Amino acid sequence: MDIAALRSDLDGLKIEDNAKIVQQKSRDFYWYSPVLKRQLDHVTADLIVSPKSEEEVIRVLAACHKHGVPVTPRGTGTGNYGQAMPLSGGVVLSLAEMNEVTSITAGRVVCGPGAIIADIDRATRAHSAQELRLHPSTYNTASVGGFIAGGSGGVGSINFGGLRDFGNVIRLRVVTMEAEPRVLELTGEDLHKVTHAYGTNGIITEVELPLTAAYDWVDVIVGFDKFAGAARYGNALARQDGLLTKLITPIAAPVPWLYFKRHQKFLKEEQSICVCMVAAHSLDAFLAFTRRAGGEVVYNAATAPDEDKKGLPPAYELAWNHTTLRALRVDPSITYLQSLYPFPNQLELVEKMDGMFPGEVFSHLEFVRFDGDVTCFGLNLVNFTTEERLDEIIRTFEANGCPIFNPHRYTLEEGGMKQTDEVQLAFKREADPQGLLNPGKMIAWEDPDYDYRSDKTFLFRGLEKVG
Amino acid sequence: MDIAALRSDLDGLKIEDNAKIVQQKSRDFYWYSPVLKRQLDHVTADLIVSPKSEEEVIRVLAACHKHGVPVTPRGTGTGNYGQAMPLSGGVVLSLAEMNEVTSITAGRVVCGPGAIIADIDRATRAHSAQELRLHPSTYNTASVGGFIAGGSGGVGSINFGGLRDFGNVIRLRVVTMEAEPRVLELTGEDLHKVTHAYGTNGIITEVELPLTAAYDWVDVIVGFDKFAGAARYGNALARQDGLLTKLITPIAAPVPWLYFKRHQKFLKEEQSICVCMVAAHSLDAFLAFTRRAGGEVVYNAATAPDEDKKGLPPAYELAWNHTTLRALRVDPSITYLQSLYPFPNQLELVEKMDGMFPGEVFSHLEFVRFDGDVTCFGLNLVNFTTEERLDEIIRTFEANGCPIFNPHRYTLEEGGMKQTDEVQLAFKREADPQGLLNPGKMIAWEDPDYDYRSDKTFLFRGLEKVG
Repeated sequence: MDIAALRSDLDGLKIEDNAKIVQQKSRDFYWYSPVLKRQLDHVTADLIVSPKSEEEVIRVLAACHKHGVPVTPRGTGTGNYGQAMPLSGGVVLSLAEMNEVTSITAGRVVCGPGAIIADIDRATRAHSAQELRLHPSTYNTASVGGFIAGGSGGVGSINFGGLRDFGNVIRLRVVTMEAEPRVLELTGEDLHKVTHAYGTNGIITEVELPLTAAYDWVDVIVGFDKFAGAARYGNALARQDGLLTKLITPIAAPVPWLYFKRHQKFLKEEQSICVCMVAAHSLDAFLAFTRRAGGEVVYNAATAPDEDKKGLPPAYELAWNHTTLRALRVDPSITYLQSLYPFPNQLELVEKMDGMFPGEVFSHLEFVRFDGDVTCFGLNLVNFTTEERLDEIIRTFEANGCPIFNPHRYTLEEGGMKQTDEVQLAFKREADPQGLLNPGKMIAWEDPDYDYRSDKTFLFRGLEKVG
Repeated sequence: MDIAALRSDLDGLKIEDNAKIVQQKSRDFYWYSPVLKRQLDHVTADLIVSPKSEEEVIRVLAACHKHGVPVTPRGTGTGNYGQAMPLSGGVVLSLAEMNEVTSITAGRVVCGPGAIIADIDRATRAHSAQELRLHPSTYNTASVGGFIAGGSGGVGSINFGGLRDFGNVIRLRVVTMEAEPRVLELTGEDLHKVTHAYGTNGIITEVELPLTAAYDWVDVIVGFDKFAGAARYGNALARQDGLLTKLITPIAAPVPWLYFKRHQKFLKEEQSICVCMVAAHSLDAFLAFTRRAGGEVVYNAATAPDEDKKGLPPAYELAWNHTTLRALRVDPSITYLQSLYPFPNQLELVEKMDGMFPGEVFSHLEFVRFDGDVTCFGLNLVNFTTEERLDEIIRTFEANGCPIFNPHRYTLEEGGMKQTDEVQLAFKREADPQGLLNPGKMIAWEDPDYDYRSDKTFLFRGLEKVG
């Protein structure tokens, strides 16, 4: 890599080469996983380049293509799987400054990939009481482009499913990695080419997303003596078609009491909970439903005195990957797993798996719509001992019919469906023929004959060369 | 009944006693059913009283209570089951003039029971781009109080389920039928006391309903060679969590071509269709999904030239009970049935029942959320021959696991779950101890020992005395 020659071709663009800052901007929340921490800790780019416009993105890609320099796109680096980490060094393309919200209309927002999700919502709420359908628990820090390229769903998935579902992304502008980069507009079925592809086959320069009505979401925590009660309640609540919620999160004792420090005064050590976000106009009905279901409301933001609410994080910062983050802050030996409890047996599977690893795995569920049904994902906390034991737990979940989306792998396939995504692969051939975009993340590109059924972890050869 | 004495007590209120007008305002769309037409054709009130305020409602109820005169509340009379028909004569209490929209806030509207649903939506759309969650196909004529007291769901139920579900009604003000009528505010669980009770246990004087975001809904008709294809498509579309629709209505050939006269130019006689309302910002994704599902878009309001759209009724006026109405206008021998195809076997049941009565029953489905699952109701058209044959068809549906909500019965129980609703009965004892509200509609009140498992039709004795 002739970085000096590249630099001169990028004259006038914003470039960072301070080693400390470059390393910091080459990282995400990969350290949630002790496995990724071991594998990726040394990863760093050569340069961080921060384009301010699509034209500048095109200049960077053309120059990197000319010099054969890998490019790894990055928003604000809130991913958990090393999505935005440059395994072969080269350029980290920071899109954080392309953060303009350019258009808001009924049901739609258009913005740059670097726009922070909370900032988009602030703009759309002020404009016309609208907000994004889905957001990660890193609402206040995550960029929208990173969410689309590296995320899958989150808060709001109880109403709209995941990002991969038809309709949850309307349009993407994507720049290809070629001698003369092309700008493509993708809609409809074509969106699947680049959503959740970690930027391996195109750089997103503009996004158009659907909006939904923004309401005052009321944070409520409901307590239960047993985790099974919290899970059953969450499932029944998620199936209430007339009750508008945005988050339904059962968490097993003692996780809430141990790790939700600022909520501890509302909780008991032996109490499992369901964390909920409820539309204000559904609150009466929610409370009637909860009473009938036998849940104890231990915290209700609509009635809590101001002094109780002071300093409390919002409910979504207790949920999804923030549950793990809060546990990690207290106990660094904690990690987690991501599983699906398939419909219609989700409650049965939840109860079975919950009892299987006492003191080692702690249940944390997120209710969602998934392919038209209400079911739940698990983002279960794990008291980490060894990688072998972690793999054993994963195999046990899978043997019991709960697919694992392994958050301890940096490749698309191992973190997902363990098979080649032919659509994404074909688009990479077209849009990144030299394989310079985010190298090492798409196994199908690196090793077409890879055997996903082996119990081995894919190791990207390029990873050994850097650092 | 001393109608003359009653009249003098109602001095100053708006009263109608012209026999022709009184008869007209004692009727609804009961004539959809040849059975109800035979039974109820002679039904008429003595007076129509039209209060303009809750105070006037209280005056009317107190006076009628004093004189032992039955009171049957009525909105705009768009029901199909004789809900608002005064089986024992007396007063029809027309609430049509209590139609003010008094408050619109985020997610909520408060209005009088006589407000026309389309008028409410016009006000909430203009105020803040909001609209009601649910409406009947009689959107432009139905009153909201009548919808709540006599309806169950409709357009929008694919997103929010039915009116009986927690959260789809926020609050009702209800006046009791006593010497000194009380005004009650019902919320949460208490709402079940009076929703879908035909006004048998209280008069609704104010409603508070949830609102949802109002979008430009695009009418689209998708054609299929076989009805099973339209049904499968509707089911798959309804399960697309990210695709925002408001109506998904498969209808078997040749019904659309025969009866949707103004749409005939877009249709073929042998073509089954799925009528859809799609949010404009979901249209791209909808068309991509439809292409993949093998449906042929035969009409798309977003791209149809203005001259094609001229004079076309909106999609919702092809659906729900308007399908029946359009058929009846062309062929007066048509009637219909209402069934549920229970999840998860809905498609299998639809196909089975669709093949069972060739040339006699024509499938018409409405996809909905029902108790947390996506499934469909049938509002199947029936070529009516005799009441005995109609009962035979009903028994066949039920024997195959498809409950029938019989639209050929004027009682709550026979049109519904064929059992006593203890909550509604208990509230009637409290709110209408003399049984003067809408007599004859609640079997549990008239004949506590009635055997719902008999194959007989309940005949209200009071019905014989009038006319």
